[in-house]
Amino acid sequence: MDFDYSPKVQQLQARLNAFMDQHIYPNEARFHAEIEANRAAGDAWLPTRVMEELKELARAAGLWNLFLPESELGAGLSNLEYAPLCEIMGRALWSAEAFNCSAPDTGNMEVLARYGSAEQQRQWLEPLLAGRIRSCFAMTEPAVASSDATNIESSIVRDGDEYVINGRKWWSSGGGDPRCQVFVFMGKTDPNNPSRHQQQSMILVPRATPGVTIERQLPVFGFDDAPHGHSEIVFENVRVPVANLLLGEGRGFEIAQGRLGPGRIHHCMRLIGLAERALEHMCRRSLGRVAFGKPLAQQGVTLERIAEARILIDQARFLVLNAAHMMDTVGNKVAAKEIAMIKVAAPNMACRVIDWAIQVQGGGGMSDPFLAPAYAAARSLRLADGPDEVHRNQIGKLELARYQPPSAPR
Amino acid sequence: MDFDYSPKVQQLQARLNAFMDQHIYPNEARFHAEIEANRAAGDAWLPTRVMEELKELARAAGLWNLFLPESELGAGLSNLEYAPLCEIMGRALWSAEAFNCSAPDTGNMEVLARYGSAEQQRQWLEPLLAGRIRSCFAMTEPAVASSDATNIESSIVRDGDEYVINGRKWWSSGGGDPRCQVFVFMGKTDPNNPSRHQQQSMILVPRATPGVTIERQLPVFGFDDAPHGHSEIVFENVRVPVANLLLGEGRGFEIAQGRLGPGRIHHCMRLIGLAERALEHMCRRSLGRVAFGKPLAQQGVTLERIAEARILIDQARFLVLNAAHMMDTVGNKVAAKEIAMIKVAAPNMACRVIDWAIQVQGGGGMSDPFLAPAYAAARSLRLADGPDEVHRNQIGKLELARYQPPSAPR
Amino acid sequence: MDFDYSPKVQQLQARLNAFMDQHIYPNEARFHAEIEANRAAGDAWLPTRVMEELKELARAAGLWNLFLPESELGAGLSNLEYAPLCEIMGRALWSAEAFNCSAPDTGNMEVLARYGSAEQQRQWLEPLLAGRIRSCFAMTEPAVASSDATNIESSIVRDGDEYVINGRKWWSSGGGDPRCQVFVFMGKTDPNNPSRHQQQSMILVPRATPGVTIERQLPVFGFDDAPHGHSEIVFENVRVPVANLLLGEGRGFEIAQGRLGPGRIHHCMRLIGLAERALEHMCRRSLGRVAFGKPLAQQGVTLERIAEARILIDQARFLVLNAAHMMDTVGNKVAAKEIAMIKVAAPNMACRVIDWAIQVQGGGGMSDPFLAPAYAAARSLRLADGPDEVHRNQIGKLELARYQPPSAPR
Amino acid sequence: MDFDYSPKVQQLQARLNAFMDQHIYPNEARFHAEIEANRAAGDAWLPTRVMEELKELARAAGLWNLFLPESELGAGLSNLEYAPLCEIMGRALWSAEAFNCSAPDTGNMEVLARYGSAEQQRQWLEPLLAGRIRSCFAMTEPAVASSDATNIESSIVRDGDEYVINGRKWWSSGGGDPRCQVFVFMGKTDPNNPSRHQQQSMILVPRATPGVTIERQLPVFGFDDAPHGHSEIVFENVRVPVANLLLGEGRGFEIAQGRLGPGRIHHCMRLIGLAERALEHMCRRSLGRVAFGKPLAQQGVTLERIAEARILIDQARFLVLNAAHMMDTVGNKVAAKEIAMIKVAAPNMACRVIDWAIQVQGGGGMSDPFLAPAYAAARSLRLADGPDEVHRNQIGKLELARYQPPSAPR
Repeated sequence: MDFDYSPKVQQLQARLNAFMDQHIYPNEARFHAEIEANRAAGDAWLPTRVMEELKELARAAGLWNLFLPESELGAGLSNLEYAPLCEIMGRALWSAEAFNCSAPDTGNMEVLARYGSAEQQRQWLEPLLAGRIRSCFAMTEPAVASSDATNIESSIVRDGDEYVINGRKWWSSGGGDPRCQVFVFMGKTDPNNPSRHQQQSMILVPRATPGVTIERQLPVFGFDDAPHGHSEIVFENVRVPVANLLLGEGRGFEIAQGRLGPGRIHHCMRLIGLAERALEHMCRRSLGRVAFGKPLAQQGVTLERIAEARILIDQARFLVLNAAHMMDTVGNKVAAKEIAMIKVAAPNMACRVIDWAIQVQGGGGMSDPFLAPAYAAARSLRLADGPDEVHRNQIGKLELARYQPPSAPR
Repeated sequence: MDFDYSPKVQQLQARLNAFMDQHIYPNEARFHAEIEANRAAGDAWLPTRVMEELKELARAAGLWNLFLPESELGAGLSNLEYAPLCEIMGRALWSAEAFNCSAPDTGNMEVLARYGSAEQQRQWLEPLLAGRIRSCFAMTEPAVASSDATNIESSIVRDGDEYVINGRKWWSSGGGDPRCQVFVFMGKTDPNNPSRHQQQSMILVPRATPGVTIERQLPVFGFDDAPHGHSEIVFENVRVPVANLLLGEGRGFEIAQGRLGPGRIHHCMRLIGLAERALEHMCRRSLGRVAFGKPLAQQGVTLERIAEARILIDQARFLVLNAAHMMDTVGNKVAAKEIAMIKVAAPNMACRVIDWAIQVQGGGGMSDPFLAPAYAAARSLRLADGPDEVHRNQIGKLELARYQPPSAPR
Repeated sequence: MDFDYSPKVQQLQARLNAFMDQHIYPNEARFHAEIEANRAAGDAWLPTRVMEELKELARAAGLWNLFLPESELGAGLSNLEYAPLCEIMGRALWSAEAFNCSAPDTGNMEVLARYGSAEQQRQWLEPLLAGRIRSCFAMTEPAVASSDATNIESSIVRDGDEYVINGRKWWSSGGGDPRCQVFVFMGKTDPNNPSRHQQQSMILVPRATPGVTIERQLPVFGFDDAPHGHSEIVFENVRVPVANLLLGEGRGFEIAQGRLGPGRIHHCMRLIGLAERALEHMCRRSLGRVAFGKPLAQQGVTLERIAEARILIDQARFLVLNAAHMMDTVGNKVAAKEIAMIKVAAPNMACRVIDWAIQVQGGGGMSDPFLAPAYAAARSLRLADGPDEVHRNQIGKLELARYQPPSAPR
Repeated sequence: MDFDYSPKVQQLQARLNAFMDQHIYPNEARFHAEIEANRAAGDAWLPTRVMEELKELARAAGLWNLFLPESELGAGLSNLEYAPLCEIMGRALWSAEAFNCSAPDTGNMEVLARYGSAEQQRQWLEPLLAGRIRSCFAMTEPAVASSDATNIESSIVRDGDEYVINGRKWWSSGGGDPRCQVFVFMGKTDPNNPSRHQQQSMILVPRATPGVTIERQLPVFGFDDAPHGHSEIVFENVRVPVANLLLGEGRGFEIAQGRLGPGRIHHCMRLIGLAERALEHMCRRSLGRVAFGKPLAQQGVTLERIAEARILIDQARFLVLNAAHMMDTVGNKVAAKEIAMIKVAAPNMACRVIDWAIQVQGGGGMSDPFLAPAYAAARSLRLADGPDEVHRNQIGKLELARYQPPSAPR
């Protein structure tokens, strides 16, 4: 057992932090201003120029595709090595894309790298790895509780050399971006299969396919998160070649299980960084703001909350790092409990820390350009990939399984 | 001691509930659609037609100006009588205006009714009571901790028959609405007065006065709350006649104290209704939504949270009603502790209940047209008129004052 | 609606407070010392002399049997009138007995007054009302979840002119006191009755009856609560005359429902007073104790917690008073939700407030003669008469029942 | 970074767990019964025979003095290696003594090993390491806030070849045990030294020295924790040779700082184990207990709480392990923040988990022989070595120190 980051990781942390200091933080205002200018000009969904510049810089700095473990296509980092880097990117909600490490592309690239055919990889994985296109993951449906993936109602029906796709999806993040060229779509090919986990399949749907309609972008507490967005999409008699199917009919649930682990842990890694920055915000504000004759840092609950925030963040970080270590060593499936645990712990921790930072900020907290979107993002992750409550029930069941058959407490 | 509403109040509750059922709830979608249509057409700040229609209906139904106690100008209701009605209005964030009971006009009308000259009342109170114009309260400043009103930095300097006004204000709610015709402005006429509570004055500033610039509308999370809005406003060498001063030089703090009581309690009354509706939302959703084979109502923490929500709401309601009773019987000043207590309790309660309702709603909770803005509104009231922490400190000090001089615990 | 105590109640509060100041608080140390002396002499369960003296004084002061509503036998107070008096008694855990208002006698006297035969009343109610004997309520069983009263396993079998009683009971409070002369025993006379609520009966068992064995006194944390105690009792072939049955065979559940309402609300009333005194303790200590150069009152979270305690206590008090009002006006059965709500809210509130007071007290908090037993008592009431969780489930179900049949949220 | 225990540690864990299974758990009832028998016979403070037997067994099994890092006198384990073993011992509140790893002896042995003279070590350390005697740490005083060690009021005055000691101490754990032969006493040798951290000294006081009076054993929620106990002790003109001084005059604060780190972390390690066992208790009980027709495990909040308990425990464990790692690598002083963090996190976590387990246990939870003392022990550690609030303030200040001089949030 060793709690120190490896020299390799420490060196990458230093390089990434330097990049953040030099290129990301100084461009935050510009990034937001460019979006607002686009919005005012009538198209908030236009990709920003600043992001394309930053991508070039990050790639040149060797800070590119850091996320892809067990593959020669990425930077060769394990989950445990990637975690502290992902944390750093998480300090700015928008920065991961500059390093080609942003959701949902990372999860989709993992799917394609693990389960994609050579042709699927050529067509979609290569441009994704190069940062030339973006992608979308179309799983969640408004009509059913999608935290139980077997509830999926969308259909994928074979018709000759094609599959015909029908369904309504929402919270398909990234659908608002015109660079998004492909959807990873989950539906049922065999809804009557007695095994509830073999009814689903995943299939690739190019954005331009007839029958795909992006109906709206769902707001998160009033934020549309342009130019990324969270789309509600209708698929109506959408036809794609049979070669677009991933892995094989009936294997959608299996792919989903493989995909959700990394997706969840990346979110949690970023939340650690987001909360760290919120704590830094709270510290700086409380030192600088005077009320009733003293800096806030010397008043009331401020120290108490800073201390609790530090404890909460450090605890959540270790839990995330341990889950990454488990994924690296025993695999996503065995690590199911550890992944579920961080999925509960990290967003709740971040919500609490950011909430406190908002209180310290005072009147402006609700419109602070960092704190307000940070809270909305963290809060939305208590629902994304299933509400807290679903994950807690799963953790509880796995814990209880250790004590079967029942016997008296000792 | 009697916990039953009086027959008079029960009759008003019935009429108001009937109006909500008949006119408000059925028009919610239309209200939001009209704003979005205005926004798409380039002016989200245009007043809606539906509101003007509803105002006519409410006035005709005798449900108009219910808020104004101890005055012949209102409906003749005490704070305690008004509270349960205000609660009902609070069930829809936007509905109070239909009854001419919306902030900040209610507070401003109370100020004008209590402290305004006959001419000031003729010019501003009459059209406000008639619902023909709206108003804005310009007190909070970005540069100082305004929860301590003595920090105010804006200046009001006499120059002959005029006052010259300079300052920057924000969170001046309603400034986005073109019907807003007058600002109640707080600044210092005598910044060097040894009494820190006699440095401030309040003055009326017509919107059209040269030097008044509305710089932006502050978002709450991502909501701009159009067509109402929360404005940041610059006053630069703004000149108004001396007759616009309220009550007299040095009496601004006194007026603020008188105004904040009703303002705070109205917010809290509305929050009770907002939380009630969120609980109703949570109950209906949990009965209707099936996951893992059973309605959510039969699973996990649902019953527990519904029970806690019921307890929290009922407790907060009694606290609010008692504060209203205190204001009616011993006055706003003596009731300072009770008002501060509800200012802490009600928004925190509402945030918690709405947060649970969002979790029960699942994926769509963050973009739910009722729940998401409801959360943002409740959350913002943990900061409006001073952060929770400032109020808690005040309550704590008032409680400790009972035990002076110190002696040993018994 | 009126939040002021009636003149009658105010006058009684004044008299009761005066009695507490003159007789109860000054005798607290003596009361505890007498018990410790008895314990050292080998019998902690001996009744104290000081209590008998105080009973005489309280009866002479007209502060006697204040609890019994709707009966000529008590002081003629409604539940709502009694609540603020019971609160005052609750400030000292041991004081209610001095006023003949202590559990479980109050509940048992209510049962006898409502459901007892003339002979039962003559034999047991009269000496109880006179404070000459004490009583015990034997319902909870160790082997089953007694929060569901239909689980009761004890048996009451008719055999000629007698009933034969068998069963094991625990948490039968007061069984340790030699003055306890009678048990109100609940068991099943008809375990196969298809109606699960008509299987139970209640019967009076004189303490001296052969077959009654008090096995031990259950500690609460480490407190044995001598000389009162919480007994585990075995009833083995205990025979009593058929005339000892209360109300009739199969009516035990009905009596239990009637009894539990007052029992619960009295506990909650007392908890308000207990928490008030803990808050007073916290205030006095924080003003008087200096650490790091300043009184605790001026440091860190102290003010925040005092404020939260004040809010929590006042909220819980209103909830309790409202439940009392409901019991008076619509009856215990209709008020089931309100009673369940206070049963959850009051002990949790008290635990929180006392916990904070312990922290302010510092090192000595865990052994403080007031705070430590107060915490244990409040904590035990989160389990007595059913754990919080059972009551919350009941509240949740009653709340959901308002929205049947299910329909969409509006 | 590596989250796996080393093979050495895993092997020790296996041996220690086997010892617990074979010798500790089966003897729990006997241990408690022996104490109760002693109590009934008039001396609850008599050491138990079972403990002496277990000590022999543990020493024979090579599970002895596992705690002492950086010394040839112990088992040669680092703090990080000891932590998971200490956790296992913590599963039974009373078991650490069997391995000669119990407080306050461990801390006192560390002091003697680090700072003791050869003669002091020969006289006291050797018998302590052999488990022949026990010791007591006399620092906390009832009259001052001892969480600020500079407040200490006891005096140590040189008089020729002797020091004369006066003062009143409490919470001196272990003073009730007749095997306790020596007190490590902290007092002021130079109360007027301008440096507040050089006024204190530590000195060894043999128990039998005239003037030492153990006045009482402080209860923790009614538990006297016999035969260990928490003593209040008066030192009145107690004379010891000058050679009994530790390290030198004015170095008491320095020793205290060195001692408190290990003392705190050992408590926290044990609390992890205590909470683990409470969670196991909760799991087993919820699987085995049926209410309302289903095991508790399938009802309401049970799964949610089990999941939260698992998260809380794992988070706290990592925090403790990291603090141990810091102590091993950078030393107790640099690790001050990490030690303070676990001192806050671990007891609060344990209190929460045990509290939930009590609720699942139901009626018997308050008198459960494991849960009730476990709660009291965990709760007392929110005060021992300073209340939570003092540690949080220290953590907050250390965190803020990173952002000096103040600058704007970015």
